[in-house]
Amino acid sequence: MIVAFLGTAGSGKTTITGAFGRYLEEQGHSVAYVNLDTGVKRLPYTPDIDVREIVTVEELMAEGYGPNGAIVESYDRLLPEVEKIAEKILKLEEKKECTLIDTPGQMESFLFHEFGIMLMDRLGEPLMVYLFDPEILKRPHDYCFVRFFALMIDLRLGTTTVPVLNKIDLLENEELERHRKYLEDIEYLKARLKLDPTMQGLLAYKLCSFLPEVSPPVRVVYASARNRTGFEDLETLSYEHYCTCGDLT
Amino acid sequence: MIVAFLGTAGSGKTTITGAFGRYLEEQGHSVAYVNLDTGVKRLPYTPDIDVREIVTVEELMAEGYGPNGAIVESYDRLLPEVEKIAEKILKLEEKKECTLIDTPGQMESFLFHEFGIMLMDRLGEPLMVYLFDPEILKRPHDYCFVRFFALMIDLRLGTTTVPVLNKIDLLENEELERHRKYLEDIEYLKARLKLDPTMQGLLAYKLCSFLPEVSPPVRVVYASARNRTGFEDLETLSYEHYCTCGDLT
Repeated sequence: MIVAFLGTAGSGKTTITGAFGRYLEEQGHSVAYVNLDTGVKRLPYTPDIDVREIVTVEELMAEGYGPNGAIVESYDRLLPEVEKIAEKILKLEEKKECTLIDTPGQMESFLFHEFGIMLMDRLGEPLMVYLFDPEILKRPHDYCFVRFFALMIDLRLGTTTVPVLNKIDLLENEELERHRKYLEDIEYLKARLKLDPTMQGLLAYKLCSFLPEVSPPVRVVYASARNRTGFEDLETLSYEHYCTCGDLT
Repeated sequence: MIVAFLGTAGSGKTTITGAFGRYLEEQGHSVAYVNLDTGVKRLPYTPDIDVREIVTVEELMAEGYGPNGAIVESYDRLLPEVEKIAEKILKLEEKKECTLIDTPGQMESFLFHEFGIMLMDRLGEPLMVYLFDPEILKRPHDYCFVRFFALMIDLRLGTTTVPVLNKIDLLENEELERHRKYLEDIEYLKARLKLDPTMQGLLAYKLCSFLPEVSPPVRVVYASARNRTGFEDLETLSYEHYCTCGDLT
């Protein structure tokens, strides 16, 4: 089975890829690691496939590109290699019980680049873990944003996306409970949004009213790479996903 | 009035900021330019405010950060300055007829960072121009993605977002007409999505069915910085937006 980690720069993709992989290995599973980040300096795991062998942001910057241009250019240069990379990943999947994919540092270089679209299209139905930071959850409509953003990933990549609130070791208990309530109890969220007279509140209220009709019930996972919180949930969800798809029973 | 340009790295924000500014100046308007990109190397306009005076990606990389980490860190370091930057922008807005904001190279460092949220919150109701590349429009559900992504920007930033298909000088006439049909005729798009049996097709169909209820009718602009296509539309929309808000009549 294939599990891919997606999220903005700094959301903890690389750290959780390493930590979740070690956790699975300690459970006795064989694990493969794929690094798709052309800009990462150090990895906490040994990659079986590493796109930095083809191109790195650093070498493109040495050619004269600015950091943003170099990131885009690196995926432009990976695009002709996408079939080969997909084949290698599918071969790993045959050999190992679990293949973990660490996606590009900047989420948009995957979601908005043909490299990401084409690669995901060739990998069957991987489980996509969408990592988000508690920092982005300040106002009621932010919870609506996260729920819809997970749908945008499904829409763009054709994957099944699990929203994962990461870095929960940084939260007080009552903060975590508040996040949980807003993320899981859509009626509670709608009641709070109804009190928000701004354009954002109104838009979020309307969007959340449609959410049950456009999205099947979603399980949110609460994770921390530091103390392995949520790893059991993530493992269970991965197996359930592959069982339901019929790829793994 | 304030017009901000948002889009993924490579969508043409900086180029259109410069070209649209020059166009407005040639019409006799006074224009101010704000650069929020800590990673840009060269600008085709002279910024009145430039965040690179506070921090640059390049100097953070010299401190040892990788490119992704440096981009995130640069906005972390700008965060304590956000009030001052907002005040400066509002002062420019008083002096000039039009203030153009060129947002960060990576769209996610604005949409997912408190710096972007707080700055936009302090600027009244700027018009947000969401630039997207024809490259991301390959399949019918991609048009649904773009329409909803513009809503995600409204939801996150509290702005009014105009979707702008950029770089249309690269398109053949029939390609442009196809994009126009899919982006503007929601019934046509739904009819095509109904023929798509994939999960993405189904999700897009459902989302598009709700679109008229969650979003007011949106005018899409078709632009090219190279030959100034769409600039008149953009100017008209900016004035209409500010008239309707009551900020400018």
